[in-house]
Amino acid sequence: MVFEYRISTPSRECLVNITKQVESAISKSGILEGSAIIYCPHTTAGITINEGADPSVVKDIVYFLNDKIPSSYPFDHAEGNSDAHIKASFIGSSVCAIIDNGRILLGTWQAIFFCEFDGPRARRFLVKILS
Amino acid sequence: MVFEYRISTPSRECLVNITKQVESAISKSGILEGSAIIYCPHTTAGITINEGADPSVVKDIVYFLNDKIPSSYPFDHAEGNSDAHIKASFIGSSVCAIIDNGRILLGTWQAIFFCEFDGPRARRFLVKILS
Amino acid sequence: MVFEYRISTPSRECLVNITKQVESAISKSGILEGSAIIYCPHTTAGITINEGADPSVVKDIVYFLNDKIPSSYPFDHAEGNSDAHIKASFIGSSVCAIIDNGRILLGTWQAIFFCEFDGPRARRFLVKILS
Repeated sequence: MVFEYRISTPSRECLVNITKQVESAISKSGILEGSAIIYCPHTTAGITINEGADPSVVKDIVYFLNDKIPSSYPFDHAEGNSDAHIKASFIGSSVCAIIDNGRILLGTWQAIFFCEFDGPRARRFLVKILS
Repeated sequence: MVFEYRISTPSRECLVNITKQVESAISKSGILEGSAIIYCPHTTAGITINEGADPSVVKDIVYFLNDKIPSSYPFDHAEGNSDAHIKASFIGSSVCAIIDNGRILLGTWQAIFFCEFDGPRARRFLVKILS
Repeated sequence: MVFEYRISTPSRECLVNITKQVESAISKSGILEGSAIIYCPHTTAGITINEGADPSVVKDIVYFLNDKIPSSYPFDHAEGNSDAHIKASFIGSSVCAIIDNGRILLGTWQAIFFCEFDGPRARRFLVKILS
């Protein structure tokens, strides 16, 4: 089963918490034991798992990435968003999570984030459930 | 099947070789063909696969990460460990491995590492076997 | 089912598009719904998904990585390729993709790349199909 979700990202770089959508996909699938692949089909965005409690953590991640991988770097790619492509490959296009007893096994502080690096845009992500 | 392992990390930043635990989980599962997800439920640690033969490789990884992502960077997050959160998202919270004929298909020099970025701490990781 | 492919990388650092090999593995497997793990068994190379249309994107990724993680950095590892090990852990040793209706669910601009960081070399990668 593949579930597709659509989001609108609010700014050029931001991390959007998508944990609820992933939990909803697992619930709809009815799968009790297995894994979930959360997949980003875009090349200037990615998926990561990090702290969801204190919003200053994701703010720091975005700020640090922009400081070290600036869009002003002398890239070749004419579209002017090579920084976003590099951030996407550093963060990764997908994450795997474990489903146990019908629930996703996240740690206490973990949340799943869609990482926008070239927004604001209409984006989508996929959740594949494996039993 | 989900297997849980506990480790004590010895220092703030270090890579702990967990290949034996992963091999043990695969052996206990009895699964001959499938895959394994090795998952870190913490937000200031991660999992990576890299060279296990020469310990200077993981030493270089830790040293370089601290040089380029220092805890002294002017982060917002009050807890003072945003560097560890960023390292965790760069390295990733999990890896996937392939099980073939009851064995994990690692390359000659590959080992699986738990990557501590905010220790020393009592930590745990999960191994999910998919057939 | 595990499929193995061999490639010769042409230079020290380069990204080689392996999408066709992955599509071929999925086709040969006959699996209609599932996932694919594309796995690199080397410790100085990795796998990533990024833009396959404009070759300047992967050129920018390689250039930026070399600028920020130079082989001339004062590493300990005697073999002189710690930069390649670090790039490998940043990029990651594998990616997961989704198979739906017998096809890999890549986004419009996405391609799968073998990332060489210590070539030129004879290399191999594995594709595991999970149903």
